[in-house]
Amino acid sequence: MQARRARALIARIPALNAERLEALVAAADGDVEGVPDPRAWRGVDLPPAARTFLATPDESAVALDLAWLETSGATILLCTDREYPPLLRQISGAPAALYVLGSVESLASAQLAMVGSRHATPAGCSTARDFAAWFARAGLTVTSGLAEGIDAASHAGALAAGGLTVAVCGSGLDRVYPAGHAALAARIRAHGALLSEFPPRTPPLRQHFPRRNRIISGLSLGTLVVEAARRSGSLITARLAADAGREVFAIPGSIHSPLARGCHQLIKQGAKLVEEAADVISELKISFPKEPLTTSRSEPARAGALDKEYEMLLDALDFAPTTIDGLVARTHLPTESVASMLLILELEGRVAALPGGRYGRMP
Amino acid sequence: MQARRARALIARIPALNAERLEALVAAADGDVEGVPDPRAWRGVDLPPAARTFLATPDESAVALDLAWLETSGATILLCTDREYPPLLRQISGAPAALYVLGSVESLASAQLAMVGSRHATPAGCSTARDFAAWFARAGLTVTSGLAEGIDAASHAGALAAGGLTVAVCGSGLDRVYPAGHAALAARIRAHGALLSEFPPRTPPLRQHFPRRNRIISGLSLGTLVVEAARRSGSLITARLAADAGREVFAIPGSIHSPLARGCHQLIKQGAKLVEEAADVISELKISFPKEPLTTSRSEPARAGALDKEYEMLLDALDFAPTTIDGLVARTHLPTESVASMLLILELEGRVAALPGGRYGRMP
Repeated sequence: MQARRARALIARIPALNAERLEALVAAADGDVEGVPDPRAWRGVDLPPAARTFLATPDESAVALDLAWLETSGATILLCTDREYPPLLRQISGAPAALYVLGSVESLASAQLAMVGSRHATPAGCSTARDFAAWFARAGLTVTSGLAEGIDAASHAGALAAGGLTVAVCGSGLDRVYPAGHAALAARIRAHGALLSEFPPRTPPLRQHFPRRNRIISGLSLGTLVVEAARRSGSLITARLAADAGREVFAIPGSIHSPLARGCHQLIKQGAKLVEEAADVISELKISFPKEPLTTSRSEPARAGALDKEYEMLLDALDFAPTTIDGLVARTHLPTESVASMLLILELEGRVAALPGGRYGRMP
Repeated sequence: MQARRARALIARIPALNAERLEALVAAADGDVEGVPDPRAWRGVDLPPAARTFLATPDESAVALDLAWLETSGATILLCTDREYPPLLRQISGAPAALYVLGSVESLASAQLAMVGSRHATPAGCSTARDFAAWFARAGLTVTSGLAEGIDAASHAGALAAGGLTVAVCGSGLDRVYPAGHAALAARIRAHGALLSEFPPRTPPLRQHFPRRNRIISGLSLGTLVVEAARRSGSLITARLAADAGREVFAIPGSIHSPLARGCHQLIKQGAKLVEEAADVISELKISFPKEPLTTSRSEPARAGALDKEYEMLLDALDFAPTTIDGLVARTHLPTESVASMLLILELEGRVAALPGGRYGRMP
C-alpha cells in the first residue's frame, strides 16, 4: 500500500488517539504503511468503530481526501512522525493525526495560546492584538482558534509583528470557518500553520470546538484568556491547559463587565493575573523546564519591587540617621511610602525612632 | 492619684505599646492608677523617652487632655481594659491606649477594613459605597480612615445601610481631618466610633497615617482594597493585614487604569480577588476561627460551580444515553458547556461516545 494512501486512511480511523496509533504502528513493526493490513491491527485492542473501519475502509472518502491533499498541498502529521509537536503528545487523548496547511515546523516552536470571547469588546480585541504582537516579537508563536473576536485579533497581532501564528480549526481544512476569515487563514498558512484533526469536508459542528480547544492548549506552554464570560468555551480551554500542567493566565477587568467574569473566575482558581505581556514571559521562563507546571501561587507578601525599596531605605539610613524628609531626598521615594516602610522596619526592630523625628538603623 | 488622671497620663507616655503597658500595670499589681508611681515603673524595662516622661510628666498637657475628655465625652481605652478589641491586641506593636469618641462596644464587633485611594474615581467610590452597605447589612462593621475618596465612601455606605462604622484618625480627635468631613465624623460617632492613638491637639502629620493604617487593619478580620495606585498607603495597610495573618481582598479593574494597579499587585501576591461583596463574606466565614488566617490560595482548578454542573450532567446521563441536544434539554446548560464537559468526562473515561452521536455513562 502506498504511504500517502495509508496515512490518509489512518487519519480517518474513528476513535483513534495517539496511544492507539502507536500500538498499531508497533504491531506493524514500526511501518505506517503496514497499519491497514489486518495482520497488523487484528491483534491490537481497539474500539469497535475503529475495527469496523479498518475491516471495510471508506475508500471513496479516502480517495477524495487524497485528491484534496494533492491540490491543497496539505500534509498529514501522525503522532509517530518526528515532527509531531512534543507538548501536544503529552496531553491525555492526544490526536493520532493532524491535517496541516503551512509550516509543519511552526508546530514545534514555543507557543502561547490566546483565547477569549467571540463577542469581545473593541478594547479586548485591541489588548489581544497588542499582547500578541509583543509575544511574537519575543519569539513566541501565538496559537488560537481562528474564531471571531479575541482569536482573530490574536492571530492578526502576531502577523502584524512579523511573527508566527498557528490556527487550530473545528472543521476540515478545506472549509474556513468563519468564512469571512479566508484572507486571515491564507496569511496564517503563509506565516505559521492551519491545522485540524477533522478530515476534509467535516463541517464546523459545535461539539468540535471543545476538541479543538484541547489541541490549542495542548500545543502551548500556557494559555492566556483575554475576555471571557462565565461558562464560556475559553474557560474549558483554560481548564484543559491546567489539567495538562500548563500555565493559565488571565487579564482582569472591571467587576461590572460580563466579559471579565470568566477571567476573574480563573484568577480565583489560581490562574496568573496578567497586566502586561511581560508578566506572561516572566512566568514562562520559570516554566520552560519539563516538570508539570504549577498553577498555585506561593509568592510571599513581601517580594520583588517592595524588597528593593526596603533595601534602598536601609542603605540610605546607613549614611547617618535622618528625618523622613531627609530619607525622601536620599531615596526619591514618595513620603508616604517612606513613612510606611519606616513603621514596618520599626516594628521589626530594624530601625529606631530617635529624638528630633530622626530615624536610625539598628545594628 | 485619680483614675481619670492616671489614664490621661498613661495615654501620653511616649514609645509605649501594649506589651510595655501590660508590664507597667503588672508592676503596679494590676492597678492602672499605680502606674505613674515611681515604685511601679522604675523596675520595668522602658525606652529612655518613656522613663523621662514618667519622671517629669507634662502636667499642663495632661490637664488640657482631661478638660477635653470632660467636654467632648471621649474615653481612653487602655490595652488592659476588658473592652480593648482583642484582634487589635494581637498585632505587633499594638497601641497601649486609644482615644475613643462614640461607642466603645463597636470596637469589639466583627470588622472589615475598606481602604483605597484618596483620588478614587466616581466608579470606585460608588463600588465602595455599595460594598460597604452590603457588608453593613450582613452585620459587619466597616472600618476605615475618614480620608477623602474610598474611605469616606465606605463610611457613608455603611451609614446609609443603617450599619456600624469605625473611623481611625491620624490626628487628635479634637480636630477632624480633613475638615470637610466634620458632618461625616459626627454621624460615625453616633453609629460606631472615631478613634485615634494620638492625643488631643496632635496635627495630622503625614507620618501618622501608616501608624493609623496598622490600627485599621489590626481591628479587622480582613482588609478590602477598592482602588489603589502602585506604591500607595493602601498597599501598606494590606501588607500589615497580611503580616498580622488577616485576609486581604482586592477588587480588580481594567489593566489600563492606574488605580487598578495596586489591587492587581496585591492579587498577584496572593490577595483574594473580589467581584462582589459576597466573595468577602464567604472567605471570612472560613476565617472566623482564631488560627492565623492564610492568604495563600490552594483551590483546585475544578471546584464549586463547575463540579455541580458535572454532577448535573452525569445525573442526566444516568437516565439513559442521549445526544448533546438531549443533555442540553435535560440540564438547561449551554450547548458549548455540555460539549466541553462531555469531552473532559470522555477523556477521564467516565462517559463513552456511542453510535448516533449519543453519550452514555461508564459504569
